[in-house]
Amino acid sequence: MSDHPKTPLLDQVASPADLKRFSDAQLIQLTHELRNETISAVSETGGHLGAGLGVVELTVALHHVFDAPRDKIIWDVSHQCYPHKILTGRRDRIRTLRQKDGLSGFTKRAESPYDPFGAAHSSTSISAALGFAVARDLGGNCPTGHGDAIAVIGDGAMSAGMAFEAMNNAGHLKKRLIVILNDNEMSIAPPVGALSSYLSRLYAGAPFQDFKAAAKGAISLLPPPLQEGARRARDMLKGLTVGGTLFEELGFSYVGPIDGHDMNQLLPVLRTVKARATGPILIHVLTKKGKGYGPAERARDGGHATAKFDVLTGEQKKSPSNAPSYTSVFARALLDEAARDARICAVTAAMPDGTGLNLFAERYPSRLFDVGIAEQHAVTFAAGMAAGGLKPFCALYSTFLQRGYDQVVHDVAIQRLPVRFAIDRAGLVGADGATHAGAFDTAFLANLPGFVVMAAADEAELVHMVATAAAHDTGPIAFRYPRGEGAGVTMPERGQPLEIGKGRIVQQGSRVAILSYGTRLAEVLKAAESLRARGITPTIADARFAKPLDEALILDLVASHEALITIEEGAIGGFASHVSHLLAESQVFDQGFRFRSMVLPDTFIDQASPEDMYAVARLNSADIEARVLDVLGIAQITGKRA
Amino acid sequence: MSDHPKTPLLDQVASPADLKRFSDAQLIQLTHELRNETISAVSETGGHLGAGLGVVELTVALHHVFDAPRDKIIWDVSHQCYPHKILTGRRDRIRTLRQKDGLSGFTKRAESPYDPFGAAHSSTSISAALGFAVARDLGGNCPTGHGDAIAVIGDGAMSAGMAFEAMNNAGHLKKRLIVILNDNEMSIAPPVGALSSYLSRLYAGAPFQDFKAAAKGAISLLPPPLQEGARRARDMLKGLTVGGTLFEELGFSYVGPIDGHDMNQLLPVLRTVKARATGPILIHVLTKKGKGYGPAERARDGGHATAKFDVLTGEQKKSPSNAPSYTSVFARALLDEAARDARICAVTAAMPDGTGLNLFAERYPSRLFDVGIAEQHAVTFAAGMAAGGLKPFCALYSTFLQRGYDQVVHDVAIQRLPVRFAIDRAGLVGADGATHAGAFDTAFLANLPGFVVMAAADEAELVHMVATAAAHDTGPIAFRYPRGEGAGVTMPERGQPLEIGKGRIVQQGSRVAILSYGTRLAEVLKAAESLRARGITPTIADARFAKPLDEALILDLVASHEALITIEEGAIGGFASHVSHLLAESQVFDQGFRFRSMVLPDTFIDQASPEDMYAVARLNSADIEARVLDVLGIAQITGKRA
Repeated sequence: MSDHPKTPLLDQVASPADLKRFSDAQLIQLTHELRNETISAVSETGGHLGAGLGVVELTVALHHVFDAPRDKIIWDVSHQCYPHKILTGRRDRIRTLRQKDGLSGFTKRAESPYDPFGAAHSSTSISAALGFAVARDLGGNCPTGHGDAIAVIGDGAMSAGMAFEAMNNAGHLKKRLIVILNDNEMSIAPPVGALSSYLSRLYAGAPFQDFKAAAKGAISLLPPPLQEGARRARDMLKGLTVGGTLFEELGFSYVGPIDGHDMNQLLPVLRTVKARATGPILIHVLTKKGKGYGPAERARDGGHATAKFDVLTGEQKKSPSNAPSYTSVFARALLDEAARDARICAVTAAMPDGTGLNLFAERYPSRLFDVGIAEQHAVTFAAGMAAGGLKPFCALYSTFLQRGYDQVVHDVAIQRLPVRFAIDRAGLVGADGATHAGAFDTAFLANLPGFVVMAAADEAELVHMVATAAAHDTGPIAFRYPRGEGAGVTMPERGQPLEIGKGRIVQQGSRVAILSYGTRLAEVLKAAESLRARGITPTIADARFAKPLDEALILDLVASHEALITIEEGAIGGFASHVSHLLAESQVFDQGFRFRSMVLPDTFIDQASPEDMYAVARLNSADIEARVLDVLGIAQITGKRA
Repeated sequence: MSDHPKTPLLDQVASPADLKRFSDAQLIQLTHELRNETISAVSETGGHLGAGLGVVELTVALHHVFDAPRDKIIWDVSHQCYPHKILTGRRDRIRTLRQKDGLSGFTKRAESPYDPFGAAHSSTSISAALGFAVARDLGGNCPTGHGDAIAVIGDGAMSAGMAFEAMNNAGHLKKRLIVILNDNEMSIAPPVGALSSYLSRLYAGAPFQDFKAAAKGAISLLPPPLQEGARRARDMLKGLTVGGTLFEELGFSYVGPIDGHDMNQLLPVLRTVKARATGPILIHVLTKKGKGYGPAERARDGGHATAKFDVLTGEQKKSPSNAPSYTSVFARALLDEAARDARICAVTAAMPDGTGLNLFAERYPSRLFDVGIAEQHAVTFAAGMAAGGLKPFCALYSTFLQRGYDQVVHDVAIQRLPVRFAIDRAGLVGADGATHAGAFDTAFLANLPGFVVMAAADEAELVHMVATAAAHDTGPIAFRYPRGEGAGVTMPERGQPLEIGKGRIVQQGSRVAILSYGTRLAEVLKAAESLRARGITPTIADARFAKPLDEALILDLVASHEALITIEEGAIGGFASHVSHLLAESQVFDQGFRFRSMVLPDTFIDQASPEDMYAVARLNSADIEARVLDVLGIAQITGKRA
């Protein structure tokens, strides 16, 4: 067989305008080609497969019926946007997805006018679409013009409070706005929450066989005017509910549910909506994640994210691992603590797999709480548990903890409640790019009074930090660790609580001290190895704590060295700022002391391998080595980079 | 008349246990006494009046029926907690409300075991209550024991996404949990949003006259088992809705609506719920903000917050103002810009009055968007407007901007969208205390790539910063300003856009330079006045920008002075950290340079006057003077403090 699927119709599509002249039958054929092209591309690049496969028909139908980029199609989360990218002039680069200098794995304004609003975190699309609708009605100066604002949002994303806030506001403003609820009964993990049950009930009674009535209903229900016949058709459609749906209570017209893989349902409904909608309308579309590709359909997560794979077998081509992942080390360490203390429980926001808490869920189902995509609630819920005398571990990605920041300040920190924050995906994360970088948590946590803030230097340290957090009962505590594999260090039999606010010397040297916070320690050690050839042996310390700082250790390093360099996987305002404040207040600078801090640069860094991203950030061993030489005033051979 | 109302029954109440022996008739009498005592206390202290008056009956009924502190009564926002404080052993200090060393104006764990979970920001109560319910069921080690978890939440607070997230999770977990929806058709401002309309519809058809059926319905509807008769009674109660209410769709039993000022409704319903509830239940209680006090009932905001007042007339005793408030200066400056540019629009999250945007709403109703208590949506909605070519000003208090932090990062900063953030209540705010302090915004914004971050030194500067933000079209921009009156400076006729990243010299001096960021400038000038007597004339500069820094100005100051002191109304990680990073990278410290930063201390500061709070923070003129003397090595008379 050839490498790439045959795609005669798709080959004619340079932009969505080319879809306009296709017949409905051709559009159906196009969906098959687009699905195959998507599978083929992701098999080469890896990435989010299932979500895109679930919206192939919807993507074709939307681009046929609506006029992007004048009409704004906003994909929520947007990991389902690969078919959209293929249709919107990016097919030639689709096999560079998520790679350095390639296409982003998400929609991105800078990448294409067909991406009116970028995403990657969930549940933002309705707010953004409402913003476009308002801009349209108020004469905003939009380069691509103004048309319809269309949010495509999954049922998982709909459970986030932000989506509710947007629906509530949209229902109030009554502007023309189209929300497509892409209901695959699946967020990243199987769905949780009452809303999910509600959606199931919505179509449990009367699924697709009634579609002709549905299409008729959709046509006639649209105002003006709302006719009694249309209302009956709609009521029949909604199956169980006799009164208004939840969406109607919030001021939306409701159409659905319709089969999102049947173009004969999608096309007429979208055409009708385009022709007749006046206020906000929600189209409830049922899809299957991973649709049309057996291995994805059969996977528990609908083929959510995949490595490169063999198209025929579905077998993933993962590179062999040398060490356990930080995520799994955290999960096992927490299980170990939980076995000894029945009050330890865990909270995740729709990421049981991503945080490793699926293991916890199996062992202690009653002590694991997956709250759905709901970080605000997750944090305060954990605070309530802590106030009630439990020991909650709230496990979130650094970037998603931003969603619960006020709750961290207001409910946890001010009340000094012992919530344990396990912060995964700290630092740069690779293929998911800038939107998923964990860059800011140290800055926004370490200035909160009473917080203990740690970063693990390696996977053994992580085990001890889990134990430290479990033992710390007097206030909030957080520990961060990166995506990916550990350093391969020897693992302790069990975690031992660390002394709060005490770092450690890793290597005693002279002249320059490098104080590392987090997993750059491995790069520091590499740099030290290279420096040895030049006769320089830096002292290397692992700070462990950004708060409280190990002031004695730091001032000792200052007293016994010519220079101090800090390094961390975070933006300015974090660890280095606290060290610098200490040095200033301790009058260290007054007499002259060389202090340098290596932090993430003031730029959002595009996707690449983590190592490549850290090269851009200038936080790799070669950069550390250069920094040491520079601070010691030793001439370097320019141009040397790892 | 006597100073304080006569309260024979209330005088017998030292703790809620004393309410147990009162008859229903006595409880009704007690509500009158409690209402009068609340009015009397707030007339002396000022504070949140209307909300407390609206829940007098509910407070008495809850404390009679339930057993605090074993049962956890969690007041959402908690500005309605004054009657609760009076009943829970704090009556002797109720006339110290919101004052230095007095009672907090909110619930506070550190203040009383009857405050199981503090609040001040809205919409956290259901999450917290669910945490307590879980802790109860999992055997948490709670010092006050475990009973019912009861959240009392207003209809305004219910519109926040966080409350929806909590409801969604609670409906899923099915644990016994009591949510009392205190529906006064009023948040701080008149309510907005589709949910609010929905709630109105819920009781539009069948209000209180049906209460006997309601009570019967409430009794019989509670599981197990759900009987057909009970269902009919409930359906009748719900008036318009024929199917389930929105709350039932989310997994809650629904009881209501009931009259929250009628103890003959409240008591039987609460008793029944206490005796029979199994899963999550929502009790829909209708109340009137300001109930029972004419001036409050008649006020548009239900007497939300008040200065000290005359009980008989309701007349407030406000101190005369010397200068316009920053809030009003911002509002007028924005109106001025809006008059010249039709694309300027404004977003507020339920704070049109607090942010001054009520003026904007009057003049440009179609360009003002009050999204309700929904900061996450507010930010991304504004981002969508900016993407659509409008010029949105998103006006929030610093402390509430924390609610939309991820949206600021993910939707605004990463996409470089020109959203203008007007950040009110920057720094310490006085009577509202630690929960309302605007301490962290500079730290969490200034490390975002591409953000322009400003602080106004006085009200004239604020006018220019509004103009600067209006003119800045290439990316996000924020400006902060404090609560309260301006400095009384001469006002410009209109705002002039500042050069981005340029500060200004306020006073040329020698030896020491003070670089001020924000309104501490007035204190710096005061300190300079005092220093003149000692023959010291510091150079004083106003940084204006935390990002981009005016590097040339700062390095000039360094080159021409012995020492540099920065001062800001923010926590570590903000302005000073950026300056310090610049100095380190510019090798300023290497040769010895005295740098000091004055930032908010590492503690949450309790309510007092702003000046007293800044004295605790050591950021007043006397502290600045001491810092200057110290950095110059000049001996001071110890113990001198302003």
